[in-house]
Amino acid sequence: MLDRIDHVGVAVEDLEASISLYEGTLGMPAVHREVVAEQGVEAALLDVGDGHVELLSPLAEDTPVGRFLARKGPGLHHVAYAVADIEATLGQLTGAGIALIDERPRTGIRGSRVAFLHPRSTGGVLTEIVEPHA
Amino acid sequence: MLDRIDHVGVAVEDLEASISLYEGTLGMPAVHREVVAEQGVEAALLDVGDGHVELLSPLAEDTPVGRFLARKGPGLHHVAYAVADIEATLGQLTGAGIALIDERPRTGIRGSRVAFLHPRSTGGVLTEIVEPHA
Repeated sequence: MLDRIDHVGVAVEDLEASISLYEGTLGMPAVHREVVAEQGVEAALLDVGDGHVELLSPLAEDTPVGRFLARKGPGLHHVAYAVADIEATLGQLTGAGIALIDERPRTGIRGSRVAFLHPRSTGGVLTEIVEPHA
Repeated sequence: MLDRIDHVGVAVEDLEASISLYEGTLGMPAVHREVVAEQGVEAALLDVGDGHVELLSPLAEDTPVGRFLARKGPGLHHVAYAVADIEATLGQLTGAGIALIDERPRTGIRGSRVAFLHPRSTGGVLTEIVEPHA
């Protein structure tokens, strides 16, 4: 059902400094950068193997990542698993009793389709599924 | 330097229930279970692609994961990247100014060698490097 770890999402206060850390110091190539208005973030993707780190900088305090930073500070925000068919997977997860934040897929970074599962169903872990752009 | 995302570590309060969630509901095969005394946890590994989820249940309240649970509750605890040569990578990271929790590798799960980087150097993200057992 879940093919692989697609990425970890990291909430950051300073996107430039964080890109510099991950690319310059940790050696992960920065491959994409995008404002994802629907999620209230400016995001950067850095490759590591066939997965990536997604750095998330909030566009405003009153956004999910802005509230996360205010409450918990910078750090790990979510984990995302790649799936082949996001509608089918959402159906399977709902059938298995998992509560969803997104009943239907929405647009993610780089033309992907994404949905978040509710942490109350996943042991406190904000979990995303992502169907990469074809 | 960092080859791929090896795993995400998840702090859990109930290991059995968490294995049931990840294996039974999310469909990840549970492949290993071990008490890692050096880290004060009982851990379970579940495969997803060529990576895995590592569930961490503290052996006592006065352990790193026990204190994490008391402070933050269950959820994402760390991210780990696979490396080919852990000593060489620790040398590179130190040279780049990254602070380490473990100056030398210690024994991780399944005979791996692991070291943790200090979150103050990695944007609040508890980051592990792991050289899998040959």
